[in-house]
Amino acid sequence: MQRLPGFRDFYPEPLPHKDVWSADARNWLFNRWRETARRYGFREYDGPPLEPLELFTLKSGGEIVGQLYNFKDKGDRDVAMRPEMTPTLARMIAAHERQYKKPVKWFAVPQLFRYEKQQKGRLREHFQFNADIIGESNAGIDAELIALVIDTLRATGLTEEDFVIRLSSRNAWQEFFEKHDGKPDQAYEFYQAVDKLERSSPEESAKKFAAVGMSLDAVNAFIETGEPTGELQSVLDQLIARGLGAFVKIDYQIIRGLAYYTGTVFEAFDRKGEFRAIAGGGRYDNLVKLISGGKVDLPAIGFGMGDVVLMELLQSRGKLPEFKPGIDVYVLIEDESLRAESLKAIQQLREAGRAVEFSAAPTKGDKQFKRAQELQATATLRLESKAGVITFRLKNLESREEVVMSVEAFSNWLRG
Amino acid sequence: MQRLPGFRDFYPEPLPHKDVWSADARNWLFNRWRETARRYGFREYDGPPLEPLELFTLKSGGEIVGQLYNFKDKGDRDVAMRPEMTPTLARMIAAHERQYKKPVKWFAVPQLFRYEKQQKGRLREHFQFNADIIGESNAGIDAELIALVIDTLRATGLTEEDFVIRLSSRNAWQEFFEKHDGKPDQAYEFYQAVDKLERSSPEESAKKFAAVGMSLDAVNAFIETGEPTGELQSVLDQLIARGLGAFVKIDYQIIRGLAYYTGTVFEAFDRKGEFRAIAGGGRYDNLVKLISGGKVDLPAIGFGMGDVVLMELLQSRGKLPEFKPGIDVYVLIEDESLRAESLKAIQQLREAGRAVEFSAAPTKGDKQFKRAQELQATATLRLESKAGVITFRLKNLESREEVVMSVEAFSNWLRG
Repeated sequence: MQRLPGFRDFYPEPLPHKDVWSADARNWLFNRWRETARRYGFREYDGPPLEPLELFTLKSGGEIVGQLYNFKDKGDRDVAMRPEMTPTLARMIAAHERQYKKPVKWFAVPQLFRYEKQQKGRLREHFQFNADIIGESNAGIDAELIALVIDTLRATGLTEEDFVIRLSSRNAWQEFFEKHDGKPDQAYEFYQAVDKLERSSPEESAKKFAAVGMSLDAVNAFIETGEPTGELQSVLDQLIARGLGAFVKIDYQIIRGLAYYTGTVFEAFDRKGEFRAIAGGGRYDNLVKLISGGKVDLPAIGFGMGDVVLMELLQSRGKLPEFKPGIDVYVLIEDESLRAESLKAIQQLREAGRAVEFSAAPTKGDKQFKRAQELQATATLRLESKAGVITFRLKNLESREEVVMSVEAFSNWLRG
Repeated sequence: MQRLPGFRDFYPEPLPHKDVWSADARNWLFNRWRETARRYGFREYDGPPLEPLELFTLKSGGEIVGQLYNFKDKGDRDVAMRPEMTPTLARMIAAHERQYKKPVKWFAVPQLFRYEKQQKGRLREHFQFNADIIGESNAGIDAELIALVIDTLRATGLTEEDFVIRLSSRNAWQEFFEKHDGKPDQAYEFYQAVDKLERSSPEESAKKFAAVGMSLDAVNAFIETGEPTGELQSVLDQLIARGLGAFVKIDYQIIRGLAYYTGTVFEAFDRKGEFRAIAGGGRYDNLVKLISGGKVDLPAIGFGMGDVVLMELLQSRGKLPEFKPGIDVYVLIEDESLRAESLKAIQQLREAGRAVEFSAAPTKGDKQFKRAQELQATATLRLESKAGVITFRLKNLESREEVVMSVEAFSNWLRG
């Protein structure tokens, strides 16, 4: 019995096999995400992992269905496992936006699903840190969101030498397209060609641009100039004011493939260019209106940061911490007549917040001690009874120091 | 565009509508679950929310398919969204059990899915705290697991007046069944009838018992006696030694519906009997062997605790804390010429761990202050410039106390 291809099992460390992922590292990463979001004043939300299929096709068109885990449920509804979070967010915001002061700053850590060919950094599911700011079009908000991307990556231990945010603008490309007499109905095709530029041969790209009345030379010249728009300059200035200037650069090669982006767009990459994008996002000022059927019209900007590429990068750069079992006290029960008293002590230790392990079945003393060592317990506790008086022997396993305590002294130590 | 029936949207508090759930309360509950598991020495794991259909039918038979979100994926595989965690755990343990010292103490917080009729306390998805101990058959382990159930519920603020663990044993019922000459192939049917006893009329139950050669009177007499087996007595004794005796009672009406339970079984209920079971579990000593195709044979015991019933109970007993936006400092930018310096201060505050909010777009001063109050910020910070020298005015919004700091004093305060 095997798990499905492209899906992951998460085990506690040390990992039993190179084919499985670390549950400890995953939780550590989620905590970094949540902690940074908290410092930026973002609130957490979540929606269902299963949604009506239409929620996703409405935004991305019918082509997306080929990449979805979609099916008919037992009530004959067309449903799909969520491939991204933004449509759910737009649906949730549209339903209750009046109850929230703008701008709304929300984040989520959903698991997302796509039926795709597996590649390096790309599985059939991943977890994604999604953060969005809704209801404000000022470029200061773009800077705030990009600062969150930067500080989230910094919270994992990465520095300006490890990653960079490539900053671009749909508006800049829109202007370029109009200046070169592009036809509005070919704009998306043009964006797609720009998006594929890095991964296509010059011949291929030249052909694609010619098909929409553009020239590869003009496109390349525009990218090379890299003159920031007024909006991008404002974003840059505000990131520099925060001391985050070294983490960003203008790069018009970035345009984002999806149809719905409107203004600022960006992607985070490792500096060495060894990995796929670590994060990506941008403005989508028309999407809430689209999803709400015109009911609610709010500007928005957001990003997604997946766990797969980021984990690969952190691992390759040696940034992942070591994860231990985290046992504070291992209670040794060498004398079965003291099991009841030992259980009482275990309960007291746990109620005082300590992580406690012990052998629940009668076991030889040396085996218990060996287990305490394997678990890297900070200390062992052993009860002793002499003439009906119980003493507590607490031994620090690193310093080998031992403290002998009476019942009262043990109680005091617990409180301290 | 609506979410699917039986699925939930989780919003930040205050909630915009009675029809949605609190993301803050959910995170608070997950933290209680994880924190208690840590104190008990459990390690977290997770598996895929989508598994081969066979993983679930192998254990529960084909009938379960009627309740599953199952479908054929684009690779023509029969797959299902997980309705429970135990088969995934058994699969993961069977794959790598040699790498782990026994007993293995693991927990997970999966989201689970069932296509069922919606009822109070029962939706089509829920989150479940799943904890299992694998590789030890001693009753001391049963006590350890049940103590975890109790302390997890206590960690949410519930007391012995709010809930009780009803403790029973498949072995006791097995003995009863054999003593009354039950036929082995009717044992499961008999267990099912016991399981439904509380929710069935005496006539219905009498008929079901007669069909397997048993009498309702004998069954009722056995339940009334409630004599603990040796095994259950040992579990009880060890819970009493921990000071947790008041949280449990022997109750043979509990038997658990699923086929695979073997020894100790239990369910947690609110004392007033207003809600469905809060948690349930038991021994399943043969399941790992079944799932691993006979490759690995390990005894096991585990439980599941769902979030839906527990949240309803906590709400009704007034045990849920109040959740605030959690903003430490709201930075007021009343003078646009100080925006760059203010952004620098915001960055410093966040790097020092503070949760900071501000208006990223130019906004009237009184509107900013009103927003700080709405967010229940602990303090406001305002920069002032006089003759080119910047001072920092930090005001505690509760005490109304204001501190005026120089650049150096502000840096010192950040570190302190």
